[in-house]
Amino acid sequence: MSVDAEQIARRAKHAFEEAQQRLTQGAAADQARSAALEQIRAHLQDARDEIEAANKEDMRLANEQVAAGNLSASLASRLDLFSKPGKWESMLQGVSDVAALPSPLDVCTYAKRLAEPTSKSGALDLYRLTCPIGVLLCIFEARPEVIINIASLAIKSGNAAILKGGKESKHTAAVMAKVVAAALATTPLPSDLVQTVETRGDVAALLHQDRYVDLVIPRGSNELVRSIQREARMPVMGHADGLCAGYVHEDAEVEMTVATVIDAKTDYPAACNALETLLLHRSHLTSGLWTTLSSALLQVGVTLHCDAESLPVASQSLSLLPSSSSSSSSAKVGKVVAATAEDFDTEFLDLDLAIKVVSDVDEAIRHINEHGSHHTDIILCRPLDADAHTTYNPTPGAQGASGEMASPVEHPAAKKFTQSLSSANVFVNASSRFADGFRYGFGTEVGISTGRTHARGPVGLEGLVIYKYVVKAQGRGPQTAAEFNGAPQDGGEKREWAHNDIEMRYPRF
Amino acid sequence: MSVDAEQIARRAKHAFEEAQQRLTQGAAADQARSAALEQIRAHLQDARDEIEAANKEDMRLANEQVAAGNLSASLASRLDLFSKPGKWESMLQGVSDVAALPSPLDVCTYAKRLAEPTSKSGALDLYRLTCPIGVLLCIFEARPEVIINIASLAIKSGNAAILKGGKESKHTAAVMAKVVAAALATTPLPSDLVQTVETRGDVAALLHQDRYVDLVIPRGSNELVRSIQREARMPVMGHADGLCAGYVHEDAEVEMTVATVIDAKTDYPAACNALETLLLHRSHLTSGLWTTLSSALLQVGVTLHCDAESLPVASQSLSLLPSSSSSSSSAKVGKVVAATAEDFDTEFLDLDLAIKVVSDVDEAIRHINEHGSHHTDIILCRPLDADAHTTYNPTPGAQGASGEMASPVEHPAAKKFTQSLSSANVFVNASSRFADGFRYGFGTEVGISTGRTHARGPVGLEGLVIYKYVVKAQGRGPQTAAEFNGAPQDGGEKREWAHNDIEMRYPRF
Repeated sequence: MSVDAEQIARRAKHAFEEAQQRLTQGAAADQARSAALEQIRAHLQDARDEIEAANKEDMRLANEQVAAGNLSASLASRLDLFSKPGKWESMLQGVSDVAALPSPLDVCTYAKRLAEPTSKSGALDLYRLTCPIGVLLCIFEARPEVIINIASLAIKSGNAAILKGGKESKHTAAVMAKVVAAALATTPLPSDLVQTVETRGDVAALLHQDRYVDLVIPRGSNELVRSIQREARMPVMGHADGLCAGYVHEDAEVEMTVATVIDAKTDYPAACNALETLLLHRSHLTSGLWTTLSSALLQVGVTLHCDAESLPVASQSLSLLPSSSSSSSSAKVGKVVAATAEDFDTEFLDLDLAIKVVSDVDEAIRHINEHGSHHTDIILCRPLDADAHTTYNPTPGAQGASGEMASPVEHPAAKKFTQSLSSANVFVNASSRFADGFRYGFGTEVGISTGRTHARGPVGLEGLVIYKYVVKAQGRGPQTAAEFNGAPQDGGEKREWAHNDIEMRYPRF
Repeated sequence: MSVDAEQIARRAKHAFEEAQQRLTQGAAADQARSAALEQIRAHLQDARDEIEAANKEDMRLANEQVAAGNLSASLASRLDLFSKPGKWESMLQGVSDVAALPSPLDVCTYAKRLAEPTSKSGALDLYRLTCPIGVLLCIFEARPEVIINIASLAIKSGNAAILKGGKESKHTAAVMAKVVAAALATTPLPSDLVQTVETRGDVAALLHQDRYVDLVIPRGSNELVRSIQREARMPVMGHADGLCAGYVHEDAEVEMTVATVIDAKTDYPAACNALETLLLHRSHLTSGLWTTLSSALLQVGVTLHCDAESLPVASQSLSLLPSSSSSSSSAKVGKVVAATAEDFDTEFLDLDLAIKVVSDVDEAIRHINEHGSHHTDIILCRPLDADAHTTYNPTPGAQGASGEMASPVEHPAAKKFTQSLSSANVFVNASSRFADGFRYGFGTEVGISTGRTHARGPVGLEGLVIYKYVVKAQGRGPQTAAEFNGAPQDGGEKREWAHNDIEMRYPRF
């Protein structure tokens, strides 16, 4: 088993290096990668019947497992690539969408002239340029279309990938992997650039191949991510809990708070960016806000897990609501229960919300630091003035049409909340559901990372690249470190560091 | 033991969070951090006698170990903070130097208007802002001044640090840690922001505290770094081998090549950016370049480990040199030996260089991919034309004073070398010794990372920060994800994503 893993890992690194050596012109290399993606799309299209047959076989076996009570029906239904209209086409379109994104490679992010020319030598220039990471090991769940999505992202970013999907989709994955390899064989890219493995044993062995595998990307349950973090000898970009909290400040507006909290809790309760905890400024027990908010949440079926202070108002709200049966709405009214200590450490992923009363923004921050998962946290406060931006240029002293002030007034609590919390996403007056790569404008999403290094929050193609430093010595004459030490070999003058900014662009060779 | 480690780690995370909560204004926060650094400098100055006594005790114990043959004299001498003139003062000055650097925090690196205002709500803006990572565990070698350097970097970048120095400097480290904590107690920063641990057992236990420790930074031997990578459950930013190679292309100039290779090999042979392997284009066996280069290397005492092709010329060069005794130079002449297979995988860290003849740049790249450590690799070729930069604006069509062309001519081998190799530093016509944070203009250096994620190559303060996404909803009206799904709660119109660039700056709150 581990011999196989080493071979797979070595082949992946070799394919990565081959690709790097074959495609050496920035724009042309990106065009070649994008053309390879279009080849993959065309080959998948041609192999539709074969892939559908494999997918039917996976479905048949999965339905046997469902009948035997070993697999949930919802998981089995996620395997199905063909019954739901548009799913297969949308997978194919995704390949073209990734191909059309701007290349994340060869971007200059730092450029300095280290030293100016002298009478004996030319200038010495430093560039920091984005480049691929190398070999990615991607481990994900049942949905077979993810294999194509991740393969596209890896190819576009110049990396090699080893993919492990869920065992329930293994027939589909095997055929699609074969098709991807066949498509790559018609391009300048090595066909080993994307490989798949099937068993957990393969993954376990690959997690020790730190000589060849550069980054592990697990997408799945917390248990999966944590066990990989324990075993891997290389960096892991994992997606763990999303225990998101919202803090309702003293000056929050009722209408805005109600709509935002309901969106954050109910737009998609099973998502990692759904709200799980609500921290309520004590003033709202009597301001009327909690009365309105608790009633609104109960009406859309949310069960409120209330601390001792927030419970009486919520119970009263519930008692004033018509029962579900007599209501015109089809939504089932929620419940009010006393919160347990565990409720504040629970990612419900359902129509449940834990409520706690706090004295101020500092107590809210402390609660989030202690109980949150640093995924996404939001503060609700009075409407904030607009920042002066390219799209908003008010006349000095005048008020905007919508009543926005030209000179923004400070909001210390919003400032403190956004500065102090070290969560990946911190929002003011916006729903936590906005924490998403597509919504952020990245065009696509590798996943949402809860780590604190490399890339965090929604990760786009940028998260699959790193950088290298390229130094270009210009003109004649050697460029030696000794000249700067004050000991030039020819006894000449000590050379001085310049460290001047130069244009950030790819250097010419 | 592990209970202590958990307490230390929890205190560090708490101190980090406290500091984040106490310092919430960007510029003022940086001033407070810098002022805290100046407090540390002043307290160290005041405690000089106490620190010197502790350092003498470490030296006494170390010299006993040297006498018993358990410790090298050179390691013992590195402990000494006070005998060498300027060492103590330079440590103190380093604290002020870090304080004076621009803050790496609160820098906006991405800004988008996610959605334009509507009749019901204001604009929705996204900012990506740099922020501290959290708790750093730094493990390093004997030199006691490193503790002050790392503590300064951690404080400046808003992180908390747990430091473990070499056991030989433990008395000095303990007193300095006490002084740092006393200095922090006079500032708005928590005194637990910097803590020290003393034993390997403490470190082993801390490597499992992934709930509290966010990044491990080991600086030391390859064995140390690798064992930490195996044990740590959190990301590791390690500094491993520097097996640097130089490739001499067909069109390389003799004078430039000789001076650059000698600098790369001899400026500081024990450094990780020193040259260890030289790949020679076959044409240079007869072009005269290898004759001149081998002679020059031998004259400065370099032992050449030659492959079968390069050996005859090198042997001839040696035979033509006067013996050391009769030479006017004090340098001992080097040797010529037949290279073993291991020589090309060896980081000599001494005046030794492995020589191999290759057919072209592709073979050089393949050799480096197989044998190198992706630290720093250089290509030597004909002098390259200047890029047109802000500091260099030639008249179109005209030639520069030093003969530089206004329209650069392409150099395919240099292009391929810099594009294909995924080393952290890839240089054209420059010595590998330039791979260094100070020389790159970072002001300081955390270390040189050989990883492929987060930060690589010379790492400055930027490597100690990560980012968070801050969304600011402007004006009145709720900002919900549902509006964009086509299902606004009030039945209004579907809202569209804008994803327009806005000014990259810290948002106003």
